Amino acid sequence: MQKVGTEIVMTALSPMEIRKKSDRLDTIDVLMKTSGANTISANKSSNEYILNPTHEDSVTPLVWQWIKSYKDLPISVFQFQSKFRNEARAKSGLLRGREFRMKDMYSFHRDKEDLMQYYDRVKQSYMDAFHELWLGEGTMITVASGWDFTDEFSHEFQTILPIGEDTLFIGQDKSFAYNQEVTPSQAPNLQDPNETMKPFESVFGENIVSVERLVEFFDIPAWKTVKTMLYIADDKPVACSVRGDYEINDLKLKKVLNCKTLRMMTEDEILTHTGAQIGYAGPIGLRSQIEFFADDSIANLINFECGVNQTNYHAINANRDRELPRPAEFHDFKLAKKWDIEPSSWIVYDVQPWCEIGNIFPLETRFSDIFGVSYMDETNQRQQVMMWCYGIGPSRIMGVIVEKYHDDKWIIRPTNIAPFDAMIVPATPDAFEEAKKEYLTRLDAWEDVCFDDRDLRFGEKMGDWELWGIPEVVIYGKKGREVKMRG
Amino acid sequence: MQKVGTEIVMTALSPMEIRKKSDRLDTIDVLMKTSGANTISANKSSNEYILNPTHEDSVTPLVWQWIKSYKDLPISVFQFQSKFRNEARAKSGLLRGREFRMKDMYSFHRDKEDLMQYYDRVKQSYMDAFHELWLGEGTMITVASGWDFTDEFSHEFQTILPIGEDTLFIGQDKSFAYNQEVTPSQAPNLQDPNETMKPFESVFGENIVSVERLVEFFDIPAWKTVKTMLYIADDKPVACSVRGDYEINDLKLKKVLNCKTLRMMTEDEILTHTGAQIGYAGPIGLRSQIEFFADDSIANLINFECGVNQTNYHAINANRDRELPRPAEFHDFKLAKKWDIEPSSWIVYDVQPWCEIGNIFPLETRFSDIFGVSYMDETNQRQQVMMWCYGIGPSRIMGVIVEKYHDDKWIIRPTNIAPFDAMIVPATPDAFEEAKKEYLTRLDAWEDVCFDDRDLRFGEKMGDWELWGIPEVVIYGKKGREVKMRG
Repeated sequence: MQKVGTEIVMTALSPMEIRKKSDRLDTIDVLMKTSGANTISANKSSNEYILNPTHEDSVTPLVWQWIKSYKDLPISVFQFQSKFRNEARAKSGLLRGREFRMKDMYSFHRDKEDLMQYYDRVKQSYMDAFHELWLGEGTMITVASGWDFTDEFSHEFQTILPIGEDTLFIGQDKSFAYNQEVTPSQAPNLQDPNETMKPFESVFGENIVSVERLVEFFDIPAWKTVKTMLYIADDKPVACSVRGDYEINDLKLKKVLNCKTLRMMTEDEILTHTGAQIGYAGPIGLRSQIEFFADDSIANLINFECGVNQTNYHAINANRDRELPRPAEFHDFKLAKKWDIEPSSWIVYDVQPWCEIGNIFPLETRFSDIFGVSYMDETNQRQQVMMWCYGIGPSRIMGVIVEKYHDDKWIIRPTNIAPFDAMIVPATPDAFEEAKKEYLTRLDAWEDVCFDDRDLRFGEKMGDWELWGIPEVVIYGKKGREVKMRG
Repeated sequence: MQKVGTEIVMTALSPMEIRKKSDRLDTIDVLMKTSGANTISANKSSNEYILNPTHEDSVTPLVWQWIKSYKDLPISVFQFQSKFRNEARAKSGLLRGREFRMKDMYSFHRDKEDLMQYYDRVKQSYMDAFHELWLGEGTMITVASGWDFTDEFSHEFQTILPIGEDTLFIGQDKSFAYNQEVTPSQAPNLQDPNETMKPFESVFGENIVSVERLVEFFDIPAWKTVKTMLYIADDKPVACSVRGDYEINDLKLKKVLNCKTLRMMTEDEILTHTGAQIGYAGPIGLRSQIEFFADDSIANLINFECGVNQTNYHAINANRDRELPRPAEFHDFKLAKKWDIEPSSWIVYDVQPWCEIGNIFPLETRFSDIFGVSYMDETNQRQQVMMWCYGIGPSRIMGVIVEKYHDDKWIIRPTNIAPFDAMIVPATPDAFEEAKKEYLTRLDAWEDVCFDDRDLRFGEKMGDWELWGIPEVVIYGKKGREVKMRG
């Protein structure tokens, strides 16, 4: 880290006012605040503070004090600090907690060119750090959503891990990978193109409102149904259809609709806008004030089921260019799943559980705009400052290492984070002096060894060696000198 | 620290339940809690946590897991961590903040003897650390209150500092010192013992209720008045008198009364118990159900003013053994002030403002009792574990160092915490190579030097040298090589 930035420490608490300024007080869904825990304390001081989940709002005004001209840029600062997030599901110990350690870094640049050069250096130093922690193999940089920060994609460092909570879609030759939430995808075709059109029917089926029930009721596969969801996108009613065996990905849909806010219609709104109760929306009989969007997964379906916007009625053997027109354009807003195809290479994704161990958010000018951070260029013109941020979670990484490197006993620690490189154990009193000699010799050679001279049984000592995840043990016993390695 | 303990890190958050168990949830007056900061976050998780002000409640159950028998003791663990306290008056930047860094250590022992041996080692290592930070001179171990922790006294490391917020009362040869809150004191005698008794009077004086107004009304010195305060001590009404130029020290009074709770009577209670309105209480005419306590400051007064428990009336020229009896015993519950006398040596205290830089609390068995921490001794008997805790505030120490070591420009940093030992500055372009040569030579010798090769004016570089508090600067300019030292 010291190759790419300057270490600082910021406070965990910050005033409510700063978050109000950046308009994030009401929107960050994991934000925690502090207050007096009892009446006496609350009476002493009624102040409330934000417990920072990240530090953009703190670091931007701080660094701003040091930026006057282009000569002061770039600036990059980092810290190791506890972060606090009100996670709904804190789980897996170190992997996701409400309190965790983070190494967060923030860099400020005069323009995108300078930023991109710096970004390459950070990428390299992150990968170097992961290699030193035995996480280099099986770690790749992926594309993910920009979270609350940015409409652009962010970059994640992901490492392959069976219990990982992210699903990665990896492209050809592992040259790129997407987090599921942003994966562009093509559904594998299940439709026989030679199937002949059957006569259209509108069938009565009371309370048959989920794909699961439709599949059962009509005895058809899920992919033969068309699922239609109704949204309000920036106050505009829209209907979106996807193949029945897919879900809609709100993040992708938001980009397709190019809207700022997106929410599902309420039951009342559905009734008002379609005339039917919830569960019967479809591309047929849709009122013209509702704009219709189709996912490309339904482009080539023949004889499909869909809603007709009439309570308890279902279309069977619907077909494009017959009961309903072909939309001018098909989109991709499905949530990618296993066997989906990468649209540009036309190759099936490799889908695996991965675990995030680092990330990079292109904040661009978002926080510089809010806090008015600018600089004077060579011609004395005031220019906007570009900002990105970069994170690694040291406590999460400890969890990942334990998950990745263990045997049936305990952890196998990467040498860099083992408490010692080697432990020297005299197994019998006779061997004590000889064992100690090796200990002292290796200590003189600046080796990171420990000598287990405790008054414990041999089994207990070996148990501790395993428990502590020390890579090497040297045992001096009746059979002489014996070396064992973990991992 | 590593000579006396093992470094760990605990969490800043802890569950409400733990504090409930130690019965401190409602009593710690600086306790802070966390909750969701907005509706979305609060809906995701309604959990509330304590933001630890110290870690006794966390460390005791943690260490308990490692204590089985006497062989496992002593154990001592320490951490460097942020603490959170809802201070009414957060002030002086680093000296007292609602968030601050603390090095806190907790030691567990089989008995008092083991503890005292360990205590001596900690005292030494603390003083060593203070010496390394240039705070050894002018720092002494003092006696203070046990705060929320203990009825016994605690020990503070105090350093003399004009803006210090503690007032220390230092005894003969600086061999001991008390924090004002616990200072035993004898008031200097102002009473001429040969003064003859004057005739007693009960004088009408409407609304003359403070010492200040009495002094004015009767034209007498404050020390000729007797101030009487009414309390409820464990449900028992008591009256306590002290010389008019003193205040009562509740902490000392509590020990004199040997009570658990102590509070001032309300106006209504005063009326009920004395028959007079607030401001007229006194040793004369006091109802017998109120127990009376006298501070030794009033022991030898002649012709003094006091209340007679009658609204708007005041006793003048009151005298013991005449208008009122001599109490069986005089006590010491006055708040010590300048010119007060140390009772055992009979020498006037040296009184100065000092600043706390470390402390030791004898927790004894308080937390071991709560969490049931015990061990098996050699005879397989279960025994209580003794526990003390020890604190240093690194952020506060930074503030103390700045207050103690600065000139009219900026900080003079102790070498140990300066960012560099020396800065080498080429003042002219011609001198650049020669300056760099010295830099590289000293760098090769593992010296902690920095080379200021920035494209800035000489004045700016020297300004930064002062700002950063680097002890030494070497300037290469027209006049050759020049060395300047700070401090």
